[in-house]
Amino acid sequence: MARCHRSGACRRKIGKNWRVEARAQIKRFVDGRRFQRFIAIVIVVNALTLGLETSAKFVDQGHDLLTAVDRIALGIFVVELTLRIIAYGFPFFTDPWSVFDVIVVGIAFVPTAGPFLVLRAFRALRIMRLVSVLPRMRRLATGILRALPGMASVGALIMLIIYVAGVVATNLFGEVAPKYFDDLGTSLFTLFQAMTGEGWPDISREVMAKEPLAWIFFVIYIVVCTLAVLNILIAVIVSGMEQANTDEIVELEEKQARSDQVLLEEIRALRDEVRALREERA
Amino acid sequence: MARCHRSGACRRKIGKNWRVEARAQIKRFVDGRRFQRFIAIVIVVNALTLGLETSAKFVDQGHDLLTAVDRIALGIFVVELTLRIIAYGFPFFTDPWSVFDVIVVGIAFVPTAGPFLVLRAFRALRIMRLVSVLPRMRRLATGILRALPGMASVGALIMLIIYVAGVVATNLFGEVAPKYFDDLGTSLFTLFQAMTGEGWPDISREVMAKEPLAWIFFVIYIVVCTLAVLNILIAVIVSGMEQANTDEIVELEEKQARSDQVLLEEIRALRDEVRALREERA
Amino acid sequence: MARCHRSGACRRKIGKNWRVEARAQIKRFVDGRRFQRFIAIVIVVNALTLGLETSAKFVDQGHDLLTAVDRIALGIFVVELTLRIIAYGFPFFTDPWSVFDVIVVGIAFVPTAGPFLVLRAFRALRIMRLVSVLPRMRRLATGILRALPGMASVGALIMLIIYVAGVVATNLFGEVAPKYFDDLGTSLFTLFQAMTGEGWPDISREVMAKEPLAWIFFVIYIVVCTLAVLNILIAVIVSGMEQANTDEIVELEEKQARSDQVLLEEIRALRDEVRALREERA
Amino acid sequence: MARCHRSGACRRKIGKNWRVEARAQIKRFVDGRRFQRFIAIVIVVNALTLGLETSAKFVDQGHDLLTAVDRIALGIFVVELTLRIIAYGFPFFTDPWSVFDVIVVGIAFVPTAGPFLVLRAFRALRIMRLVSVLPRMRRLATGILRALPGMASVGALIMLIIYVAGVVATNLFGEVAPKYFDDLGTSLFTLFQAMTGEGWPDISREVMAKEPLAWIFFVIYIVVCTLAVLNILIAVIVSGMEQANTDEIVELEEKQARSDQVLLEEIRALRDEVRALREERA
Repeated sequence: MARCHRSGACRRKIGKNWRVEARAQIKRFVDGRRFQRFIAIVIVVNALTLGLETSAKFVDQGHDLLTAVDRIALGIFVVELTLRIIAYGFPFFTDPWSVFDVIVVGIAFVPTAGPFLVLRAFRALRIMRLVSVLPRMRRLATGILRALPGMASVGALIMLIIYVAGVVATNLFGEVAPKYFDDLGTSLFTLFQAMTGEGWPDISREVMAKEPLAWIFFVIYIVVCTLAVLNILIAVIVSGMEQANTDEIVELEEKQARSDQVLLEEIRALRDEVRALREERA
Repeated sequence: MARCHRSGACRRKIGKNWRVEARAQIKRFVDGRRFQRFIAIVIVVNALTLGLETSAKFVDQGHDLLTAVDRIALGIFVVELTLRIIAYGFPFFTDPWSVFDVIVVGIAFVPTAGPFLVLRAFRALRIMRLVSVLPRMRRLATGILRALPGMASVGALIMLIIYVAGVVATNLFGEVAPKYFDDLGTSLFTLFQAMTGEGWPDISREVMAKEPLAWIFFVIYIVVCTLAVLNILIAVIVSGMEQANTDEIVELEEKQARSDQVLLEEIRALRDEVRALREERA
Repeated sequence: MARCHRSGACRRKIGKNWRVEARAQIKRFVDGRRFQRFIAIVIVVNALTLGLETSAKFVDQGHDLLTAVDRIALGIFVVELTLRIIAYGFPFFTDPWSVFDVIVVGIAFVPTAGPFLVLRAFRALRIMRLVSVLPRMRRLATGILRALPGMASVGALIMLIIYVAGVVATNLFGEVAPKYFDDLGTSLFTLFQAMTGEGWPDISREVMAKEPLAWIFFVIYIVVCTLAVLNILIAVIVSGMEQANTDEIVELEEKQARSDQVLLEEIRALRDEVRALREERA
Repeated sequence: MARCHRSGACRRKIGKNWRVEARAQIKRFVDGRRFQRFIAIVIVVNALTLGLETSAKFVDQGHDLLTAVDRIALGIFVVELTLRIIAYGFPFFTDPWSVFDVIVVGIAFVPTAGPFLVLRAFRALRIMRLVSVLPRMRRLATGILRALPGMASVGALIMLIIYVAGVVATNLFGEVAPKYFDDLGTSLFTLFQAMTGEGWPDISREVMAKEPLAWIFFVIYIVVCTLAVLNILIAVIVSGMEQANTDEIVELEEKQARSDQVLLEEIRALRDEVRALREERA
């Protein structure tokens, strides 16, 4: 090291070393327990101010304070994310949680005028960062997200059923009950509502007043949806159970394997002894 | 082959061979991945046009285009099914999915006038062909359909309960609340609705205004239905779980059997050795 | 036999024998497949006439026919039950299904005037005899009934919760929302309704209009009920699963035991051989 | 003992002995089956009087009787709890059930005037003491309470989702539908209601009348909540099942271990015999 103190290549190397070390130090800092707790507290405080902002009373009285706290929290988040991007470099963006963090923090920078103004209402999604910051919540959310692919095909089947039923219902009941089945979009919403089992008899009775046979459509639709939803439930429970079972059966297998190993060794030792006996005789 | 070039029987044989080969080739074509994907795309496009047709706006603007696409899609389906019937012959009709395909495509040929006109609204069922065309969806649907027999007796029990409750309710409340219990049909619909847990208190309170003891009927009915529905849930979950468990226990059994086999072979080898020892001594 | 043809004791014995044989024959008859199918058909026919009777139109046109069929069916049931009582004697009344049969058939003999008139509306319960007649339905119903004791304590807990919540709600909201909480009975019904999750927000919002803090009561009640109901669900599923699991694990155990038996016999044979070897040497 | 009959220390010792013995006797008394049954009966009687008190009719007629029974029951509870505090000393307060008992009995001593008057309505919670007195109910309640921590993180996640959705909805729909989304509190209640799946289409349709895109918010919210609630269900079922499975697999393991032990002993005996054979030869 002492030798190279004046060459350019060496300076670059030192520069690089310095950068590598700095990144490692930043990494240690942003991944440290204290920093993560601090960020969690900032999120909770920010959640409270975002909540208070919705109340007209508080906005009148402490508007300046709320805005100040919100801006400080936002500033802290921006600094935190910048540090994490510096620390991790490009791989930062391959972690879906990090991308989520960047997006929900970024919503705050949507201009207060223009077509995307409505997005500002979703600033509160920032509070969901608690899930990505607290390890326990993160594990839970990851678990739920991991169960999604298992439900994907049932989900697709349900969407297909709703779509087909929507087209059929619009054709059949569009003129009879325009409030519920006027066009495809309205029908799809109505049928999603019926799938959650909410208020379907009101809709059905209104249609049946003019089309007495409409009950056939509704009863079949409700039964088919119930069966499909039951299947999501089963998919989810079975996958949860398989996990639980596998753990126990693996443990049972291991115990059994150990026990069989003891037997096997005992038998082999015996065989060696018998062989020794034969050799002694020979 | 060369010998028979002028006899009639031979010509028939060649004709038959040619037909067999043609059928095999058609079979390979209709079962090929490319063709199935093409059909899937046609179904999706057709789904979109069927959806757009429900919107008055689109029907005015692009009526001709929509009708054209719909007819082309229908033509493709007819050709596809014809090819599959040629390829498979009569056994085609023993596959329930094929029968489903023929029926939902056939609905398009219901005359646009006459008593079956309403069936045309069910043309959209054609979109459900996606389920029979995509292997993954088909497996899922087959799984759901296979679970049905397990629920059949619970389903029959529930229908029996609704029927009996319907007769009782019509006798008891027919004059009190004609909107809900006027005749058996109305009562059955009302009780199906109550079974889905939807809006039963409104019905019950209306009846109770005149028959104060009606709560006994409703509370018992709700509790009995809940128990019966719970039983469907259990039947379904238990059957799902048994499948999952069986797989794992079978695996455990196999591992165990292999391990026991090793032990057994070891012991038998030992026995051979002891026997050899005895024979050597003798 | 020939010897005793004139003594009184002998005649009594023959009489007894004759009676025993007659009872056995009746038993074979009423338990026979044909007779049970015949009864099942009579029940279904009776179910249809009971259903038609609820319709004013049919009662006007075919009143005589319906009454005749109903009376014939009733007559057949009375004969059937009499035969079964003769065949089985007193033990007949120890089978809960038989008692159920007697009661639901007996309802038809409630006088058409007087305080029990309303019971006649429950004549339709007779249709539920299908469950006791068809073996498959009977097994299912037995299964459901057997699961009940497992839910008994959760059921008692839920009733206790509803009762306590009912007393509290009557005290708190009785004057505010007399429609829902006027006296204990009304409150209990309202809370049973809320437990099925039906229409509770309407009730809650009406109360909250005057008692803004009422949401605390409703949210806690809904959460507590959901947890309790979840527990019924678990009790039922776990008991269903245990059954399923036990069967498989018992089978696994048996296979394992057989496999271990083979090993044990092999080892014992080996030991005999070694012992023989020692004896030969001695 | 005879020696010390006049010294002060001795008298204190006797005093202490006497107190220890008295406490043991009280303990035996309050833990005795008879006393617990007596308390259970008093609770049931008190439950009835508390129920009757809610009825204006009964309060007019038998006001004095009801008050008297209520006071006697209260007196018995006070004596019972005093005895149990004497018997157990400080550790009494470390049992959560005892603390619960003290609190629900203590509510009766809230002054009938002043800010805590409303608490008196919760006197009926005293009936819940049945759960702590009856061993079976107590086990059940303990089981439910023990399952709570397993749901804690899903519960926290659901609360977080409701809070974030509440802030977003207040911002988005506060002016459009003040009845449901006026301030954060109202929004949270509305979204809790929507999570129970009750009446959400009415709310959604009211909002959609002015904000046609609001369906996106509601559909996503309902789907996310359903997934989260499904996860509670799974957590609960899997934990219930694990319990059930563990018991059986532990039993299977024990049987297997015993069987393997037999094999092992057999093999070891064999080895001893072979060793003896070698030694005899040597």
